[in-house]
Amino acid sequence: MFRYLTAGESHGPALVGILDGLPAHLHLDVGAIDATLTARQGGHGRGGRMKIERDRVEFLAGLRGGVTLGSPIAVVVRNHDHATPHVRALMDPLSGSGEPLTNPRPGHADYAGALKYRERDLRNVLERASARETAMRVCLGAICAQFLAALGITTHSAVARIGEVAATFEQWDDAAVEASPVRCPDLAISAAMTAAIDAAKAAGDTLGGTVLVRIDGMPAGIGSNRQPAQRLDGILAGALMGTQTVKAVEVGDGTAIAGRPGSAAHDAFALRDGAVVRASNRAGGIEGGMSNGQPILLRIAVKPIPTLMRALPSVDLHAGAPAPATVVRSDVCVVPAAGIVCEAMVRLALVGPILEKFGGDSIEETLDNLARSRAASAALFERTPVQR
Amino acid sequence: MFRYLTAGESHGPALVGILDGLPAHLHLDVGAIDATLTARQGGHGRGGRMKIERDRVEFLAGLRGGVTLGSPIAVVVRNHDHATPHVRALMDPLSGSGEPLTNPRPGHADYAGALKYRERDLRNVLERASARETAMRVCLGAICAQFLAALGITTHSAVARIGEVAATFEQWDDAAVEASPVRCPDLAISAAMTAAIDAAKAAGDTLGGTVLVRIDGMPAGIGSNRQPAQRLDGILAGALMGTQTVKAVEVGDGTAIAGRPGSAAHDAFALRDGAVVRASNRAGGIEGGMSNGQPILLRIAVKPIPTLMRALPSVDLHAGAPAPATVVRSDVCVVPAAGIVCEAMVRLALVGPILEKFGGDSIEETLDNLARSRAASAALFERTPVQR
Amino acid sequence: MFRYLTAGESHGPALVGILDGLPAHLHLDVGAIDATLTARQGGHGRGGRMKIERDRVEFLAGLRGGVTLGSPIAVVVRNHDHATPHVRALMDPLSGSGEPLTNPRPGHADYAGALKYRERDLRNVLERASARETAMRVCLGAICAQFLAALGITTHSAVARIGEVAATFEQWDDAAVEASPVRCPDLAISAAMTAAIDAAKAAGDTLGGTVLVRIDGMPAGIGSNRQPAQRLDGILAGALMGTQTVKAVEVGDGTAIAGRPGSAAHDAFALRDGAVVRASNRAGGIEGGMSNGQPILLRIAVKPIPTLMRALPSVDLHAGAPAPATVVRSDVCVVPAAGIVCEAMVRLALVGPILEKFGGDSIEETLDNLARSRAASAALFERTPVQR
Amino acid sequence: MFRYLTAGESHGPALVGILDGLPAHLHLDVGAIDATLTARQGGHGRGGRMKIERDRVEFLAGLRGGVTLGSPIAVVVRNHDHATPHVRALMDPLSGSGEPLTNPRPGHADYAGALKYRERDLRNVLERASARETAMRVCLGAICAQFLAALGITTHSAVARIGEVAATFEQWDDAAVEASPVRCPDLAISAAMTAAIDAAKAAGDTLGGTVLVRIDGMPAGIGSNRQPAQRLDGILAGALMGTQTVKAVEVGDGTAIAGRPGSAAHDAFALRDGAVVRASNRAGGIEGGMSNGQPILLRIAVKPIPTLMRALPSVDLHAGAPAPATVVRSDVCVVPAAGIVCEAMVRLALVGPILEKFGGDSIEETLDNLARSRAASAALFERTPVQR
Repeated sequence: MFRYLTAGESHGPALVGILDGLPAHLHLDVGAIDATLTARQGGHGRGGRMKIERDRVEFLAGLRGGVTLGSPIAVVVRNHDHATPHVRALMDPLSGSGEPLTNPRPGHADYAGALKYRERDLRNVLERASARETAMRVCLGAICAQFLAALGITTHSAVARIGEVAATFEQWDDAAVEASPVRCPDLAISAAMTAAIDAAKAAGDTLGGTVLVRIDGMPAGIGSNRQPAQRLDGILAGALMGTQTVKAVEVGDGTAIAGRPGSAAHDAFALRDGAVVRASNRAGGIEGGMSNGQPILLRIAVKPIPTLMRALPSVDLHAGAPAPATVVRSDVCVVPAAGIVCEAMVRLALVGPILEKFGGDSIEETLDNLARSRAASAALFERTPVQR
Repeated sequence: MFRYLTAGESHGPALVGILDGLPAHLHLDVGAIDATLTARQGGHGRGGRMKIERDRVEFLAGLRGGVTLGSPIAVVVRNHDHATPHVRALMDPLSGSGEPLTNPRPGHADYAGALKYRERDLRNVLERASARETAMRVCLGAICAQFLAALGITTHSAVARIGEVAATFEQWDDAAVEASPVRCPDLAISAAMTAAIDAAKAAGDTLGGTVLVRIDGMPAGIGSNRQPAQRLDGILAGALMGTQTVKAVEVGDGTAIAGRPGSAAHDAFALRDGAVVRASNRAGGIEGGMSNGQPILLRIAVKPIPTLMRALPSVDLHAGAPAPATVVRSDVCVVPAAGIVCEAMVRLALVGPILEKFGGDSIEETLDNLARSRAASAALFERTPVQR
Repeated sequence: MFRYLTAGESHGPALVGILDGLPAHLHLDVGAIDATLTARQGGHGRGGRMKIERDRVEFLAGLRGGVTLGSPIAVVVRNHDHATPHVRALMDPLSGSGEPLTNPRPGHADYAGALKYRERDLRNVLERASARETAMRVCLGAICAQFLAALGITTHSAVARIGEVAATFEQWDDAAVEASPVRCPDLAISAAMTAAIDAAKAAGDTLGGTVLVRIDGMPAGIGSNRQPAQRLDGILAGALMGTQTVKAVEVGDGTAIAGRPGSAAHDAFALRDGAVVRASNRAGGIEGGMSNGQPILLRIAVKPIPTLMRALPSVDLHAGAPAPATVVRSDVCVVPAAGIVCEAMVRLALVGPILEKFGGDSIEETLDNLARSRAASAALFERTPVQR
Repeated sequence: MFRYLTAGESHGPALVGILDGLPAHLHLDVGAIDATLTARQGGHGRGGRMKIERDRVEFLAGLRGGVTLGSPIAVVVRNHDHATPHVRALMDPLSGSGEPLTNPRPGHADYAGALKYRERDLRNVLERASARETAMRVCLGAICAQFLAALGITTHSAVARIGEVAATFEQWDDAAVEASPVRCPDLAISAAMTAAIDAAKAAGDTLGGTVLVRIDGMPAGIGSNRQPAQRLDGILAGALMGTQTVKAVEVGDGTAIAGRPGSAAHDAFALRDGAVVRASNRAGGIEGGMSNGQPILLRIAVKPIPTLMRALPSVDLHAGAPAPATVVRSDVCVVPAAGIVCEAMVRLALVGPILEKFGGDSIEETLDNLARSRAASAALFERTPVQR
């Protein structure tokens, strides 16, 4: 059974994660994990905090000589900001204290969390709810990416819209994405996005946008139609919508499909050199809640972050009087980072259903089972039926 | 711990469900459950199967004298079609057999399922993958609705688009929805939708669309920012996307938010008669993964169903030759039914997070705890701090 | 993911179970399931209820032509007693009612359940808590037994003690067990047990005892040392102790091991014809929370059932006055049946950890993976190391 | 939902744990956690490793100023041994390596784990399987103890047998336990136990024994008869048997009950000053899978640890030749420590079922709900029925 837990406050000592259920004997490339952490910190439009942090993964368990043991993997990403005396005074696990924050930010967890936890200091809510938490998702997702890669499965993300600036590409390669400061592979649009972010910054405003995630190399038959909660599209949408700032998730042609007739909404089967092929991928690689062997395509809309330098109207909850929302150091646009985070969530979401089908306590065992499954799939519809 | 399992093939003897974890002493209105089952069967555009079935809930466990015992609830919805001799010959659990189905339908589970289960007869896949399965989701959801109603929480759905015909209402009442044969509260648009369905039927085609679900009466603080998988928006999106034909899920303003600046994307706080109020509900009732006390708003896009009378191009997998997709008796448009099903999934998804916060082995206990929580919320920011 | 839910009151219409996650293409022998249900109803010392019931499994889902589809399996075992008019009047799901039971039985769920569910009629507690519920465990366990048998894994049980009469055998075969009316393979002891039951019955008393369960054919490496909750011994003990009347569970030499030195408590390794063998099986087939390839041995103590014809002292909770405990129709000794139930719980407990290691959506896939795993185990310590 | 994950190798950098789901606003006494960690390290019969380690909890998340935030709690317990250069060279997560261990110890995870993980170096198995892992269980359990204490629930443990030396006390107080170097409250027996350990040590042997755990202050109605896996006795037995060296678990009178008639096996109800009381506690505080309000009594048998200085016969798996089992630095008797660990497992096992009944995102909320539940229980059988 694959599962994970994360912990960590935005200004506490560290983010912590435990990843349980990855097979033994996977050789981890630690540099690749750190590079993904760095990618999350980047993108045009990030604020001051990202200049302080230099996120690096530290392994405390589950690894020996860079190879997984099959035991749970424990990782830590330090919050360098916590070393600052005034931050430590505020957030030390044993001694931290400070004046309460009282003016909730519209769009943030502040108010809902205060009611949930019967909490009069909004800081005690926002520290966990902060998007800083996503650094650990990215870290664990980057570990999972190496498991997936061993099976031939890769994930890719790109930015398709920032504010009013939208691109129209449908395919992309990672190099073009990496070359853009906003992770948009269309260079002209990328420049317009950058300008839009600068304008928003000047106005004390923030911008949202749209990111695409693609999964290549997925074997068919992952996910299940057995129970509602086992469908792969549901699992992926749940993971993505459970991410800070995400407000919409589409699979394949998504909302556009609602306006089309059935004759223009599906992916016809054909034969090419004896193999079953598809003429299109409107379904986005998932039919009946299961991967169908095509690339999986996901489109995710993220809202502008709720902390604006020109603070939104709010209320001082202690005073019972109108007041501007609390302003904390923040970013103008996190859409490029959101692509990295969404990719991480997709990686984390895939491992469970994959291990459920193929099993395996060591990567050798999982690969054995995957190879045998592929061979059986290939033989399934040969003219002479397989014997049972 | 609240959870459920469902079972049942489309042409097998029955659909079966077990619902575990509802408190004791809830008086169930069985007629209301049957009415919801009937509503799922209706809507302009349904096909011949719905004329055969008259779905009714049968309780086998968990209820005595119409009141829940706190023990697991077991329900059955019979497939009347199974009584037909040729259907029974095909699908009897002990003796059923028949010629294999070999031509997968694009957009359905047929092909992915064949590879998953190493299955050469597509009937063995499609029987469970069929949308008939949603009748049990609706049945269990209708039971949950009565638990939610006891807590003051209600769900509502409406159709906002069918094919190219889109409505623009933002609010609606249930009576207007029930008055429309396509569950669209705008009567002019409703008529246009009906016409579009008739045209699609004449063309041997199918239509998808968009449904809205609203949750009224939600207490604040349901769902959690503790772990990625506990966020209420993720839980709802996972439940909805894990439903047949759903291809997109939006919370609040959803995809539209991606194009707006932060200053026009959130819901400012204000005071009215001393109470904290919101000027808008762009967030759709969820902030930081938790309900914030406002109505929860969800928008769901569903694809046209994949079984067309003018069959899509496919392949005979046994023969290895092009062939039209298998045609089975089916519907032209299920968007009105999809609204009922999405409402059911929302109901099922809410119970777990609500019981996690309020607990309770009897409805009296849950109501006690909810009342105390509401009182504490109200007192939280009174000038004299509550004592801890 | 393998899991199951059960439902059903003792005098309600039926017991219901859903078993989710068994692979497709398993041919089920329904007669064998019914035979196990019959075995649970037997054993010297059962009371009048067992004369009324003739438990038979009825499949409502998951099966076609006697073969699993991979979809969830739904089964029903009818309570024939429910057809009696006065029982139906009492327990009909929609209309049942009757005078409350008010005098809790010591040793039963009555009192604890009343407090848990805020319930003033003890019948509403005891209907689910009754050991009748174990018929569904046995039914689902008998299905799982056929999955296990396909993998070469079999379970076996025997009675080792009833009241003061104890047997000392350590090994047994199923035929000797089946030949005894109390399922004790030592015929002389079996006769003494029968006599003890008759004496208890004459005295209006009840008897407990001890049962043994053995698992043959277990592959090594099932269960895990990764997390506390994944250890196979913990999983088995949890399943067994979570069974009506069970008060103690031992693995291998169990409590006896506490008095022995380490030099006489473990199972030395040796070589025979080049293969690693063990000189003993004190560990009972589990080391480090994982199966080690030896038979798994479990010893379970069950208490005398708490419903005595000579009622124990109790209290009328409504009247607030001393009163004898409620007497309902019951058995004198259920130890032989407990062996069947414990075997069922072991079967249900094994499937999850086995599928976690070997995966598989069809029995062909699971068997493929098991075969490959066995080959890899055999090759693991050959002189030329396996390549990774 | 309450849950936890642990990670950590015996000689790796640290043990790590994440505890998810404890309510906010619990004031933690860190000194008490450290004291429990120290208690686990103690007891007559511990070996050299315990002289090196000085276990201390370090909080990385979930706490601010010593008070829980409601967010996940992350803790680390460092392995001081890891600072030793040769240990670090062996077990560094990124660079560790060394000669493989090849001779499995009977009774340990070595052999089963090698087959499970396709692992030729037994060190890669035993590092996680080592009982060092229990330090994190104790740490997390000590946190849970403070949550339980806030609700009036306390746990207590004592040693009742070491090797052939057995005590017969049925009740005990913590002070007497703490005064004994083997945690046995009978001082004469304690001295005999100490002598037995010294004798075993001189012989190069090891000793097991028996521990008792008692839970005081349990509210009635915790755990559930709804599903097999929800019974409190099963949950406790699963947690305990899933602990290194445990081979038997008994609830209440346990195995002794098997030999007694029903008339001498249960706990009669009586009235005292109008309150319902029990004449005995043979059931050990659990009836029908639910706590009944009496103290919960558990008896656990632990085996002698499998690492003997006079090594047991084994096999060199690489050489395919007989060889003595690997000898690593180890203890002679861990029974006193096992009591601490079993108490920790009981604490961890209780929190989930308690929160399931009472809910609560803050300790104030949980206490509110508990108080209301107690009042309702008290009123349940007053003459004038409670209104529903």
